Formats: sequence, C-alpha cells, structure tokens
Amino acid sequence: MKFTIKKQPFYKSLYSVGRAASNHSPLPILSGIHITLENDTLTFIASDSNISIKEVLHATEDNKLTVFEEGSVVLESRYILEAVRKLDDEVISFEIIDGALTRISGNSAEYNINGSKADAYPAIDFRKPEVSFDILGKELAEIISQTAFACATSEERPILTGVNFKAEGTTLNCVASDSYRLAKKTIELKEPMNFNIAVPASNLMEVMKSIAEDQDVTVAVSDKLVQFYVQETLIQSRLIDGIFPDVNRLIPNEYGFELTVNAHDMVNAIDRSSFLKSEGYWTVKLDLTPSTAIVSSHSQEIGSSEETLSPIDYKGGNLKISFSGRYMIEALKSFRTDIVKILFVGEMQAFILKNPQDDSIVQLVLPVRTFD
Amino acid sequence: MKFTIKKQPFYKSLYSVGRAASNHSPLPILSGIHITLENDTLTFIASDSNISIKEVLHATEDNKLTVFEEGSVVLESRYILEAVRKLDDEVISFEIIDGALTRISGNSAEYNINGSKADAYPAIDFRKPEVSFDILGKELAEIISQTAFACATSEERPILTGVNFKAEGTTLNCVASDSYRLAKKTIELKEPMNFNIAVPASNLMEVMKSIAEDQDVTVAVSDKLVQFYVQETLIQSRLIDGIFPDVNRLIPNEYGFELTVNAHDMVNAIDRSSFLKSEGYWTVKLDLTPSTAIVSSHSQEIGSSEETLSPIDYKGGNLKISFSGRYMIEALKSFRTDIVKILFVGEMQAFILKNPQDDSIVQLVLPVRTFD
Repeated sequence: MKFTIKKQPFYKSLYSVGRAASNHSPLPILSGIHITLENDTLTFIASDSNISIKEVLHATEDNKLTVFEEGSVVLESRYILEAVRKLDDEVISFEIIDGALTRISGNSAEYNINGSKADAYPAIDFRKPEVSFDILGKELAEIISQTAFACATSEERPILTGVNFKAEGTTLNCVASDSYRLAKKTIELKEPMNFNIAVPASNLMEVMKSIAEDQDVTVAVSDKLVQFYVQETLIQSRLIDGIFPDVNRLIPNEYGFELTVNAHDMVNAIDRSSFLKSEGYWTVKLDLTPSTAIVSSHSQEIGSSEETLSPIDYKGGNLKISFSGRYMIEALKSFRTDIVKILFVGEMQAFILKNPQDDSIVQLVLPVRTFD
Repeated sequence: MKFTIKKQPFYKSLYSVGRAASNHSPLPILSGIHITLENDTLTFIASDSNISIKEVLHATEDNKLTVFEEGSVVLESRYILEAVRKLDDEVISFEIIDGALTRISGNSAEYNINGSKADAYPAIDFRKPEVSFDILGKELAEIISQTAFACATSEERPILTGVNFKAEGTTLNCVASDSYRLAKKTIELKEPMNFNIAVPASNLMEVMKSIAEDQDVTVAVSDKLVQFYVQETLIQSRLIDGIFPDVNRLIPNEYGFELTVNAHDMVNAIDRSSFLKSEGYWTVKLDLTPSTAIVSSHSQEIGSSEETLSPIDYKGGNLKISFSGRYMIEALKSFRTDIVKILFVGEMQAFILKNPQDDSIVQLVLPVRTFD
C-alpha cells in the first residue's frame, strides 16, 4: 500500500473512526484502525464489541489522494493519530515498507509505525438491515440530547442504560429512564414501521458528534444492531438485550397544579443551591402558594439556602414538593427554550415538565421524600 | 459580624486565600477560611501545614465594604466560594446569625452556612522575619518559571522537591534539580545578604499565580519559613529540611561541541516524536556531523521517527547523544527565546543549554545511555 494525501482530511477520517477503537478490548488488534486502499478509495474501520465505525474517503480534488499501490494494514489508533496530527506538512506520504511496518512521512520528518497485518483483524458485518428510515440530522440530534441524559449510568439494570426506540405505525417513541426520572420524545415517521430496540446512550453520544444538522441520517434497524449512516460515516451499535419496561403508564394525565416558569431563572436558582450538594446530590424543595414560589435546600452538615422565584403563572393551591436538584436542572435544560410548564398531581406524585410550544417532548421527575 | 460588600472583590480575596485551605488536613478546621472584620478591614486567612495565605481588604469606594458589626468566623472554603460565586447580585450581605451560622444574601437568594467559631482556628505566626529583600514581580516569576519545573516530583529525596535559594553577598543563586537535570538562575540583589533555603516548588507555583509583573514583591526569609508579600496578599511557605546538594560542580566549563538552534524548531521536532512515548517517557537521539543534524527516536514496541534539523550554527565534529524528550523540551522552552545554544562535552557527558543573550540562566540535562 502506498499513497499520498492531504493531512487534514486523512486525520479527520482517522479521528472519526478512532473513537470506536478500544484500548481495553481482550482482542489487542481492536485498539487499531483498519485502513484499506482499493479503487481510489480509502476505507477506515474501527470497532470494539460495542460500537463499530466505518468511513470512506474517495480520491477528490480536495483531499488530493494519489494512489501508488493498493493494500491494507492495521495501525494502533493512538499512535497513528498522534503521528499524523503532529506532522506539519500539508501533504503526507503513507507506505507499507515491510510486512506491516508503515512509514508516514512529510517533508523532513519520517515516522515508522509497527502495524499489524490486515487479515488478523476480525471481519465485521456492516451489511445494511432491511428496515430503515431517514431522519434530518437536527431532529436525530434533538432526540438524543433530550433523552440520553436520563439513562441510567449504573449497570444494575442494563436495559436502562439505553434509549428505547419503539416504532408503531408512523409513530416513533424515544424513551429514556433511570427509574427516578423519564424523558420521552415522540416523532412522526414518513412511513409506517415496527421495531422496539434499546441503544446504549454512550453510543448515541458518539453518533451525535458526527451529525450535521441540515443533512439526512439514515437509520437502519435489525434485532441485533442499529446503523446510522451520517454522510461518509457509518456508525453501527449493538443493541441492549431485553425488553424495555413500558413506562407510558407512569406519565400522569391529570394535574391539579400548573406552574409556568422561565426555565433559565429556575435553573439558576437551583444551581445556586448546589453548594449544598454532597457526592453530587442535593435535594431541592419547591414551596408553592397562589402568591409565592420559594426554592429552598437544606443540608444538615453544610447549611441551607432559600430563594424566591418569580413564576410567569401559577394555577393551583398550596403545594410542597422536593426533588433532586440535578435532575430538575437537566430536565429544564433539555427543552432549550425560555418557558417551561411544570404540571404536578400532588405532594408525593411524579410530576412532568412540558414545552407549551412543543408537545413532542415530556420530562418526568419523581419527587423525593423529605422529613421536615 | 455583619457587613455588606461588592461581590467581586470579596470573591477574589476568598479565592486567593482559599488555595491554601486543605481538605486533607488532619485538622478539619483547616479546610476553612478564617474571616475577620476589624477597623474597616476584612482579613482572610487559610493554611495547611505547608503554605499559609493572608489577605487584607480595606474598605474603599471600589469594594463598597460597609461595616455594621465587627467579628470573625471560619467557613468551609469550598462552600463559601461556591455560594458567593453563584450569587448574581452586585452587592452581598454577610452576617453571623447564630454562633457560627453565617448568612450570605443577595436580593432574592439567601444562604446559611454552618461555620466554626474563629477561636477554634490555630494561631498562625505571620510575623515578618528580619532578613528581606525586594524583587520585581516579573523577575521573581521568571526565576520560578525557569527553575521550578526541574524539581523532583517524587518524595524520594524531599530536598529535591524544592528550589534552592542561596544568597551570598549580592548574588542569589536559584537552583532546581531532580538529579537527571538541573536549572540554575542567578540574579543580583540590591544589598548583600546570606541565606540558603529550599522552598517547595508547588508553593512557588502558588506564589506565581499572585504576582503582578510590574509590582515589587518583598521576600522575607528565616531559617523556618519564607514569606512573599504580593500587594495585599502574604504567602508564607514552610522550608524543606536539609541541605541542598552543591550542584555547581556538575556544570561543565569546557565544551567541544557547540550547537545553535531555533528553540521552537527543535521543540517541535522532538514533540513530533512524542507519539513514541510510553508512560510519558521517550528517548531522543541527536546525531550531529559538521554538515547534518538529525533527531531520531525509537521504540521497540511502537516504531521509530527521524527528522532532519536545520541548525543555525554548529561548531564541532561528529557527536551522537541521547536524552529524555520531555526534559529537552522543558529546558528549551524555559528560555522563552528564539535562539538557544547547546554545549556538549562528549557522548556520555552532561550538556548545558544557554541563551546567547542572557547569562543568568543555565539548563543542564544528563544524557541517557542507549544500546544501538
């Protein structure tokens, strides 16, 4: 294998797939990036057992890829990335000089990296499943950013570390929950389809990094994996085994109290009380009356805080309810809007947050019992 | 104690002394900041056994300090810092409301922090030692930045974790060494004096953060401690026990090889080979002939690099010498200048780096034995 190419696009592709390379895999070769040159096209592949990324780079005027000899090799991700990043030449030369020993050179610097032969790399099945749909990058990014944060981070119930994508007819429900809160986003598909999968939240965060807002992403789904086709990049994620719990019944339908607030004001008020947190956690109490709204927090050890909110509107009587400060901040921020409506059923009942302008998204938070 | 004050200067003083508060001290109260209000002046103190910082804030037009009642209290550094930082009012109110329970409030938010009574805080002796001298902030900052990086980071030989300040007559020699390299800065004092102390490098880094380049710093020295008076801040550091080794004899006086390089070019060339590092360490070989200069590096596991340098000048014959890539980069960078002269004695001999324009600073690096 021998070629020359502009440094920037080459580095970009290496970096893009390198995210899937793992230094902790039981199979050492999976810490490498598999690079193939064939028919004027470079193909980059990296994978751990969890996520696989494939990217192609065709020879263009822009990237100045010039092929001298086809071939393939696997190079340790962190070494090839650092070597290419540090080369300060515009065009670099890449050549296998002996077995898997690869030379990368610029004008005056020359690096030899011990690679592995490409046939030692496991074959990864990138075939496209039959079921697939297109979605605008912006919309997919919104689904991920409005749900994935609510996934569980502990592996106690593995299914809860993923976002549930459930398509029935033309409705796609995207749900995440760590069992103390829940985020649900609903969108309309162009064609009816039927699937019910859970995708690891961490893999969705990787997908989000590749998304361009104004370009379509193709999502292909089987019962084993999901693929995201984002321009020249294909990101393939395993699914989480198991059936995602039916959480729709948790969302209440009737409410006795309706608070409308400026989301930023409420986030700031709760954030100001965060000095009371211990191990990342602090409980915030909201004390509502027809004429006042007070946010307070209390820690036996550290002290207390109290702040008066100026709600935009409140319908309801007296209500005291406590919740996790962090969960409330994350739920409020997920709307990325100024005005948020909080709907309460009663003192020890789950409550929900909504965007008055957009019905597609619901955030639910469970209250915390306090003893004062 | 009760006062109001502008948030910004109050926070700045808390932050400035808070660096000395320790969450790991066997004495829990030392994780706090001791705040005293007396005679229209706020005094802030924090200390661990290693470094103590004291700062005063007099009532001025700028800080709008308004005193209602004198007093003192100790507040946990991280809580008071976070509470004050997050308050979004321009002027805040501070009041002890019950024992050591302290209320900090703005327009609509109010925090109560459980403090400790001031008399539980150990008395710290901030008396000024007799021996002292003045130095321009810029000059002190230069001493620290050109030497402290070369201190040992392991506690194997504690004395080497400090910078040695040795005054004899009007000459002040500042030396740091981890026994594989050495940095020496010499300055002239205005008056003759005599001391020989070792100051922990980490404390000097704290001093550097407080220095304003164009203002004088007063340095006061005893056989137990050193004080740095930087504007309204007094930073007091313990000294390291023991006698600093006499390292002057390590610096050679005669050289057979003299290489003049652009420091940035050489730093970049060595940095490019850093992908070969393992556990932060990589060895770089310099191969000099009257007409060529080649920087190369080799790792059995990862691969190799080779780069041709374009020296500004070279006087000497053939020379091959190997050294730590990181040490060489740090030595080259310490000059903060374009042109650096490297003076070699021979293949396995310590070599030094100098600024041709400035004799006050010498960097010495020990070579590394390689077997190829």
